[in-house]
Amino acid sequence: MSYNINEVSDSVASEIEKVKKRIKDHSQAKFQEVQIIIDAILKLNGKMLRPQFLIVSANFGTYESDRMVNLASAIELLHMATLVHDDIVDDAEIRRNQQSVQSKFGKDMAVYTGDYLLSKSLSVFKAKDYDNEKIAKLAKVIERICESELLQYFNRYHTMTVRNYLRVISGKTAALFSLSMYLGAVESGCSETLANSLGKIGYEIGIAFQIIDDILDFSTDAETVGKTVQHDVKNGYYTLPVIYAFEGQRVTFSQLSPLAIGMQIEQHDGIEKSRILARKYTDKAFQRIDRLPDVPYKSLLRNMAEKMLVRVY
Amino acid sequence: MSYNINEVSDSVASEIEKVKKRIKDHSQAKFQEVQIIIDAILKLNGKMLRPQFLIVSANFGTYESDRMVNLASAIELLHMATLVHDDIVDDAEIRRNQQSVQSKFGKDMAVYTGDYLLSKSLSVFKAKDYDNEKIAKLAKVIERICESELLQYFNRYHTMTVRNYLRVISGKTAALFSLSMYLGAVESGCSETLANSLGKIGYEIGIAFQIIDDILDFSTDAETVGKTVQHDVKNGYYTLPVIYAFEGQRVTFSQLSPLAIGMQIEQHDGIEKSRILARKYTDKAFQRIDRLPDVPYKSLLRNMAEKMLVRVY
Repeated sequence: MSYNINEVSDSVASEIEKVKKRIKDHSQAKFQEVQIIIDAILKLNGKMLRPQFLIVSANFGTYESDRMVNLASAIELLHMATLVHDDIVDDAEIRRNQQSVQSKFGKDMAVYTGDYLLSKSLSVFKAKDYDNEKIAKLAKVIERICESELLQYFNRYHTMTVRNYLRVISGKTAALFSLSMYLGAVESGCSETLANSLGKIGYEIGIAFQIIDDILDFSTDAETVGKTVQHDVKNGYYTLPVIYAFEGQRVTFSQLSPLAIGMQIEQHDGIEKSRILARKYTDKAFQRIDRLPDVPYKSLLRNMAEKMLVRVY
Repeated sequence: MSYNINEVSDSVASEIEKVKKRIKDHSQAKFQEVQIIIDAILKLNGKMLRPQFLIVSANFGTYESDRMVNLASAIELLHMATLVHDDIVDDAEIRRNQQSVQSKFGKDMAVYTGDYLLSKSLSVFKAKDYDNEKIAKLAKVIERICESELLQYFNRYHTMTVRNYLRVISGKTAALFSLSMYLGAVESGCSETLANSLGKIGYEIGIAFQIIDDILDFSTDAETVGKTVQHDVKNGYYTLPVIYAFEGQRVTFSQLSPLAIGMQIEQHDGIEKSRILARKYTDKAFQRIDRLPDVPYKSLLRNMAEKMLVRVY
């Protein structure tokens, strides 16, 4: 089979444009005041990673544009909702290089806007007929995201085991990547086995992605990542590099400056060890991708994962 | 047909106990820390008005306990979620005579707990098979609640027309009462006409209920209502009594003390006019109830509405 990877990639890009438009159309709020905020969030215009992976995954079956654009829009709206609420809790001032909703419009506004985006996600999801099992899976993922955020929040200013850290990022990040790829596949008529494989790939990509994101929080350049650097430590979230750096030690973090934590990470190879774990998940995903059926989108999936997981480091 | 209203009412009470248990069972969080908060919210133990009306409405058809308890639990969990988020925005310290989640555990915690309860609501809802149309209606109500909260929030410290006030309370309160009664009916095999009637009764009850709730915020006794009195005005929410009191006037509320507002309300019969409007909706509901088929639960429905809408004033 001969195909051009650029064509395949262009076709994903054009689907993503449709997703953006769909989200915009569905976020027409009744009240002008609400619209102002929604527009501000839409302008932040993320990378739309989840829709991208969903669309690629759906191309392992019989791709139906309208149905998949709808599904991808619902997933991205859900993701946007969680970002808005996360920013409240994290006191984030910057999100995707722009002022966050909560710092621009206040925390109160952000609470409702997040809720509103979530409700829109459900409405969009319901605009097409999906069977109950799929809706149950979506509800379960929302539940897992919340549970993980809570677990993370409760562990602020405390050390966490690697195992618990993985539980947190599995819920808050990997679950939605996994669902995107699973639903894309299963809704395109892939077999349950194939859909499960793609779901697992999404899961592994999600874990690796979050570890890398956490590593990047220790990089020195805010431009690269578009969020306040070492922001996690300042908020009392000790992610993988810190966990590795202080492994087996009882630490009172309140007595340690971000600088001291940074030094400990360097001395104990916290970043390097985290990279190794990210690599482990990336490799798992790659191996699983290799075993997928040979469709044109297979190389694209590999390329996307590579681009996303081999960034910066 | 002969029946005993007390028996009918006992049977609703015993169903409500099942709803409480179902909510408790479904809110078993994976993490102990999360459970502590959920338990604290469950202890607040509201009046469960929406489940009550749902159950009564369902008894106009063929009542299926397990299915209705499930539906009622989902609706109450959704209601609990909105309460937790509302308290964040309102800076409420007291809710149902207890310390609110946000004042006890912090606003951040309250954001996630509200999200978590909403996700639980969806999970419970999905535990039984409801067709897509019903899920779409639920999503729509969540959307309307959010939109109304936003509209209300944007109108803080401003006068609002009676029309806009009704839009707000229609979305934030009446929509969920209406849905409860509609879904209870339709899921019990009532005809679409009967279900719609019951839905409209729920709507009218909801509107009257909210107007009365807003009136009670001007009462002088915190014990009676279980929330900080004149709390709305302090937060910049000018509800119906204020709207009537200042009708047709341009007011800079920031220059007026709660006392001055209270005096204006008294001079211009703000409370009395509000009561008349509440009564109008109550009467509409009563008239509609009178036209319902003669089932044992009909008088109970009338009694419940009376008890709820003729309270205190």
